[in-house]
Amino acid sequence: MGTHTVAVVGATGVVGRTVVRILEERRFPVKRLRLSATARSAGKTVPFCGDLVKVEETTADVLRGADFAFFAAGKEASTRFAWEAAASGTVVIDKSSAFRMDPRVPLVIPEINGHALAQHQGVISTPNCSTIVMLMALWPLHRAARVRRAVVATYQSVSGAGDAAVDALRRETDALAGRADLLEGGATTEAVEVVSGTAKPIAFNVLFQWKFEEDGATDEEQKMIAETEKIAGEPIAIAPTTVRVPVVVGHGMSISAEFEHDLSPEEAREVLARFPGVEVWDDPKKDHYPTPLLTAGRDPVYVGRIRRDPTVACGLHLWAVGDNLRKGAALNAVQIAEALIGSAGTAPRPAGVVESKVSW
Amino acid sequence: MGTHTVAVVGATGVVGRTVVRILEERRFPVKRLRLSATARSAGKTVPFCGDLVKVEETTADVLRGADFAFFAAGKEASTRFAWEAAASGTVVIDKSSAFRMDPRVPLVIPEINGHALAQHQGVISTPNCSTIVMLMALWPLHRAARVRRAVVATYQSVSGAGDAAVDALRRETDALAGRADLLEGGATTEAVEVVSGTAKPIAFNVLFQWKFEEDGATDEEQKMIAETEKIAGEPIAIAPTTVRVPVVVGHGMSISAEFEHDLSPEEAREVLARFPGVEVWDDPKKDHYPTPLLTAGRDPVYVGRIRRDPTVACGLHLWAVGDNLRKGAALNAVQIAEALIGSAGTAPRPAGVVESKVSW
Repeated sequence: MGTHTVAVVGATGVVGRTVVRILEERRFPVKRLRLSATARSAGKTVPFCGDLVKVEETTADVLRGADFAFFAAGKEASTRFAWEAAASGTVVIDKSSAFRMDPRVPLVIPEINGHALAQHQGVISTPNCSTIVMLMALWPLHRAARVRRAVVATYQSVSGAGDAAVDALRRETDALAGRADLLEGGATTEAVEVVSGTAKPIAFNVLFQWKFEEDGATDEEQKMIAETEKIAGEPIAIAPTTVRVPVVVGHGMSISAEFEHDLSPEEAREVLARFPGVEVWDDPKKDHYPTPLLTAGRDPVYVGRIRRDPTVACGLHLWAVGDNLRKGAALNAVQIAEALIGSAGTAPRPAGVVESKVSW
Repeated sequence: MGTHTVAVVGATGVVGRTVVRILEERRFPVKRLRLSATARSAGKTVPFCGDLVKVEETTADVLRGADFAFFAAGKEASTRFAWEAAASGTVVIDKSSAFRMDPRVPLVIPEINGHALAQHQGVISTPNCSTIVMLMALWPLHRAARVRRAVVATYQSVSGAGDAAVDALRRETDALAGRADLLEGGATTEAVEVVSGTAKPIAFNVLFQWKFEEDGATDEEQKMIAETEKIAGEPIAIAPTTVRVPVVVGHGMSISAEFEHDLSPEEAREVLARFPGVEVWDDPKKDHYPTPLLTAGRDPVYVGRIRRDPTVACGLHLWAVGDNLRKGAALNAVQIAEALIGSAGTAPRPAGVVESKVSW
């Protein structure tokens, strides 16, 4: 029997559903689970530990009495309800970008800056999915050899943009799969639009599916830079290019980092393998490296293709992949709650999830 | 009426077919076209300028009397037939990697080092598709401000690996599209293998689909480095990571370059827009940047997302996309032949190909 009343706001969305699944998997000590969403989704039921929990419309009332509230409903809902809930004693763990840069709000990856939780004022933010995957791979190396600069190119899955983006990839894939005339060259904007419903389908394509800021960066790139500084507690020079690819779950990234001190690829593998939440899959001789398809649904951030970059002193290339819905969002949020109640790491992995090993 | 006998070896493959199409589009002065392939494809016919040309089995005989022979059949055929053909007076333009690093053989991108053609001994190599797309975007900036170092992450289409890879993407897409259970996480190697025929499908995934070398680099990465030095005639520090994505045609790449001299994004756009074979599509306010889907089938290499990289002195980020079958392979080969007969640039673009403009 659990001891905590837990609310999940945005429980029917792709991250909210994953929060519910992870609470169950990790046996988070839930006494009562309250699920909420927009009026449109109210009345649906969601399975949890053998029960069916009814989804309510998100109101201040639903949150009243909750020890923890996981917010996964977007910026607007967080802005509207988070501080009020916090004021009445709920610890809000917010997945949206609403408060990440707010000085009152710790921005936390428990393995990296769990200490920041000591300062919380009722609202804690979990970082952007790309920031989390990147930092899980970079931070252990930063501690060992200090990152001077990292150039990062991402290969991000559509689920990072929510259920609608997953549906769009499915629809566009159906529409374009048989259209060699469009896929093999010579497609006009008009033809692509007629067939797929948009001039910029993500199926069989590569896009910058974010808002462009004044300086030409995407808002996703800006988040990676700003959030890294807040989490690290010091500026780290991150030069990101964020790219969406037609993958359903799992963010990959190519990281080319320069360090202050030399680390051999072997040393980097050891440092990474020892870090909680990171696994090294790196044996090029056996064609062994992490792919989004085989790491989606798993908790760790996987790192492979660790090799020297001879164009710079103390340079290493890495390839990191993490499940953007789990460690990139829902898992990180649940781990924050676990850290607060002191139960982190005690939860067994559920049956049926493939084991994963360090190997190189 | 043309004046040259032209042979295409590997005429039924994805690059060979594109060579035939481009010879027709650009009205290359063909007197007689001879097409060859393996015995398996012999007897097929290929349309060319209103005729049907019969495919013969590749033999020294087929090549006899050819003024130009485009080799697009892989390393083995090139190794077997190229020098013999050259010895009997044929100019061989080879798409394979067989002779690219051979000191007797110029490795040419006509817009960049067409001068190297003066030294040829009968065999000329056309570079790897990734090298071409990258250098078309980097070279104009190198001439203007000298590249100190460039970190490059690629988003390469499956057609770069030939027809079988395009078929595999199609088959795997069909097999996996309805399998949310696999695509959304928790897939085991075995389940993925049963459904898609391989543990490493490219559909809905991201792969390193190349041979890994002793130092952990892919052979594709090594080619980009070595070929760049040969084409540039000087070492340029290239730090590539080559990645395959589920796209049919068109290689994208994120390039983060440091220069010796400062170039503003505006200056870089002007320099690139003036360079033959490059077009700038760069207006983030209008969400305008090149995608593989909309640039496949077109001749230029497109560059967008030109912006400062504030983490380094004189740094710029770029996003380049080029059709790997056209400028990355067949077009570059035909342009080499055009340069040799002095007809380069005189060919009109065929009707039906969408116009493309510099815009920012």
